[in-house]
Amino acid sequence: MRFLHTADWHIGKKLHDFSLAEEQAAAFDQIEQLAKDYQVDAVVIAGDLYDRGMASEAAVAQLNGMLKQLNLNDHLPLLAISGNHDSAARLATGSEWFETTDFYLHTTLASAFEPVVIADTQFFLLPFFNLQEVRNYFDQDVKSVGQAMALIVEKMKHLFEPDKKHVLVAHFFAAGSSHTDSEIQVEVGGLDAVPTSLLRDFDYVALGHLHNPRALNEERMRYSGSPLKFSVSEANIQKGVWIVDTDPFKLTWVPLQPLHDLVVLKGSFKELTTGDLAVKYDQTQDYVAIQLTDTKLIDDLMNRLRIHYPKIIEINRPNQQSNADLKTMQTAKMDPMSLLNEFYGMVHTDQKLDDQQRQWAQDALTEIEEG
Amino acid sequence: MRFLHTADWHIGKKLHDFSLAEEQAAAFDQIEQLAKDYQVDAVVIAGDLYDRGMASEAAVAQLNGMLKQLNLNDHLPLLAISGNHDSAARLATGSEWFETTDFYLHTTLASAFEPVVIADTQFFLLPFFNLQEVRNYFDQDVKSVGQAMALIVEKMKHLFEPDKKHVLVAHFFAAGSSHTDSEIQVEVGGLDAVPTSLLRDFDYVALGHLHNPRALNEERMRYSGSPLKFSVSEANIQKGVWIVDTDPFKLTWVPLQPLHDLVVLKGSFKELTTGDLAVKYDQTQDYVAIQLTDTKLIDDLMNRLRIHYPKIIEINRPNQQSNADLKTMQTAKMDPMSLLNEFYGMVHTDQKLDDQQRQWAQDALTEIEEG
Repeated sequence: MRFLHTADWHIGKKLHDFSLAEEQAAAFDQIEQLAKDYQVDAVVIAGDLYDRGMASEAAVAQLNGMLKQLNLNDHLPLLAISGNHDSAARLATGSEWFETTDFYLHTTLASAFEPVVIADTQFFLLPFFNLQEVRNYFDQDVKSVGQAMALIVEKMKHLFEPDKKHVLVAHFFAAGSSHTDSEIQVEVGGLDAVPTSLLRDFDYVALGHLHNPRALNEERMRYSGSPLKFSVSEANIQKGVWIVDTDPFKLTWVPLQPLHDLVVLKGSFKELTTGDLAVKYDQTQDYVAIQLTDTKLIDDLMNRLRIHYPKIIEINRPNQQSNADLKTMQTAKMDPMSLLNEFYGMVHTDQKLDDQQRQWAQDALTEIEEG
Repeated sequence: MRFLHTADWHIGKKLHDFSLAEEQAAAFDQIEQLAKDYQVDAVVIAGDLYDRGMASEAAVAQLNGMLKQLNLNDHLPLLAISGNHDSAARLATGSEWFETTDFYLHTTLASAFEPVVIADTQFFLLPFFNLQEVRNYFDQDVKSVGQAMALIVEKMKHLFEPDKKHVLVAHFFAAGSSHTDSEIQVEVGGLDAVPTSLLRDFDYVALGHLHNPRALNEERMRYSGSPLKFSVSEANIQKGVWIVDTDPFKLTWVPLQPLHDLVVLKGSFKELTTGDLAVKYDQTQDYVAIQLTDTKLIDDLMNRLRIHYPKIIEINRPNQQSNADLKTMQTAKMDPMSLLNEFYGMVHTDQKLDDQQRQWAQDALTEIEEG
C-alpha cells in the first residue's frame, strides 16, 4: 500500500500575533492534492493536530473542515493520533463515529493495541502518552519513556500478523534527533528520549513531534516535520510530506510551497531600508526575522522597519552597544557639549548636531552654568 | 412514532462549587432507561447540552460518553440542537459523521431547513440563533426574535410534507413563559420572546431554554425543563421528560428522581441545629438553601451550619437586624456597660454576660475611666 505521512499541523497557531490560518489552509490544499495525485490509500497525521488543547472556535472549525474534506469528500482513510499539544479528551470527540468511514483517531494508550489494517499493512496508532498512563496500563513502575516504549513495543509485537507489514505512528522524541525551538521541550534529564533501537521491528515508523524532517536519519523511521515553518529556527528547513510505499518499501519526499515564507534578513538599518534587501523584500508578506548589524541605538526602530517589512516576527541585534558602554561614556570625564554630541550620534545613527542645534545647546549649557 | 423530549442538560455545571457530574450521570441513566422502557423511536435534546461553550475536559468526556451510549450502544436515533450555553462551532465537531448512525446534531441556521424524517414525522431542528445570523441568512433586516421566527417558520412550512407530522425542536423563550433564575437572561426590551401563535402549525414544538416544564401551558408546545434542579428558584419544580406520541397525539410526563435533592429549609438557628429539621436532614447530601429566621447576628454561622448540612448553596436571612439597627443602638445614649451587654446578646444569640464576664468588663471600664 501507499500512504502519505504528515504531522504537527498545529491548527490555531499564531506567529507573534499573526494568524497562520491562511498559510495552514494553503498547506492543507497541497497535502490534499498530493494525496490525490499519488493515489495514496491513506493519510497518516502523527499528532499535534491543534496547537493548543483549548483550541479557539476558529481553529476547531478549520480542523473539522479539513478532516471532513479528506475523509468524507475525498473518501481517504485517515490514521491520526493526539500529540502533546492536543487535548486527548477534546480531540476524541466523535472518534467512535469516525471509524464508520475509515477515519481512525486514537487518543488513548489502550487503543494503540488495536491495530488498524489497511491493505497489506497493520498500523499501530500510539498517541502521545505520559509515564503515569503507562504505569496504570501495565500496572508496574516505569521510570523513563524508553522503558515505557520497550513495554509498548513488546505488546505490539505480540499482535503482529506475520503476513502483514507493520507501521507504527507515534509522537515523541526519538534518540539521536536534534530539536528546533518551536516544540515545547519537556525533557527532564534525558528521560524523554526513545532509543531508535527499540523501533527496528517496524517496517516504518511515522513520527510526529519534531518539526524538522531531517531530525532523524534512519531509512525506516522518519519525522515528517510540520507543513509550515513555525519558528525562526525553522527558517532554513524545507517543509513537505513523505509518500511511503510499503511493498517494495520506498520513501518519497515531496516539498510543500508556503503561501508566504519565513525568512531571516541580516544587514544594517541602511541596507534593510534602502539597499538590495529593501528592494527585494519591499512590502513583503513573508514573515521576517531581522538580524540588525548596527552597533548604535536606532530611534523608533520597529515602526521604521515595519514600513518595509509588515510582518516582522523578531528583531535581533547581536552588535548593539550595551548599556554598559553607555555607562562608561557617561562616567568618563567628558565636557557636557562632547557628551551631548556623542549621545546624539548614538540615537540618530551617526549623525552629528548641526550648527543651529549646537548653538542652541551651547546657549542652554551656558545659561545653566551661569545660573 | 414516539420520542423522548429532554433539554438543558448543562453538562459541566457546578452548583456553588459543587460538581454535579454524579447527579447528571444518575439523571442520564434514568433518561436512557426510560427511552428503552417506552421503546421510543428517537431521543430529542433541545439545546444546552453543555453548561459553557468552553467546556472542561471532564465535561467533554462525560457528554461524549452519554451520546455514544444512546446512539452507538443503544442504537437510538438522536435529534439535538445547540443552545445558548453551547458553542455551536465546538459542539459541531463530528456532526457530519454522526448522521451515519442517525444522530442529527444541528448547530447552524441553514441546517434548520433540512428536516430529518423518522417514521411518520418531519423534525425541524432549529439551533439557538442570534438576529445577525437571521439577517445574513435571509438578507433582510430583522428587528426581533419574533420577526425572525416568522421568517423561519414560513420557510419551514414550504418544506412540510403533507402526509407527515411536523415537529419543531428549538431553544428560545416563547411568549407567556415564566422564567426561573438559572437561565442566562438575554432579553432586551422583550425583543427575545417568540409569540406562541407563530408556532401553531407544528404538531408539536419540543422546546429547551426554560428549566420549568410548566413554563408554557400549551398542549402542543412544551419545555421539557432540565433533568436536574440547577438553582434555588427550581427547588419546587418537578423534573422529568416528556414521552410524545405523534399519532394519535399523546403526551406523557415522566418524573426523574434526583440522586440528591435541592431543598430550601426555613427555621431558626436553633431549629436547624437541634430541632426536627436537624434530625431529618442530619448530614444530608442534598443541596440545601437555608432561610434563617433569627434576627440576631450569629457567630461563625456558615461553619456551624455546615456541620449539619455539608452542601449549603445559599443562606438567606430575611429577618436579620440591619446595620442601621446596630447604628441606632450605638448612637443611643447607653452607658458603656449596657451597650456591651446588648452587643454580646446580639453576637451570642440571646445570651447574657455571666457574673465573671460582667466583673471583668466592669474592671476594665473602671480602669479606662480612671486612666
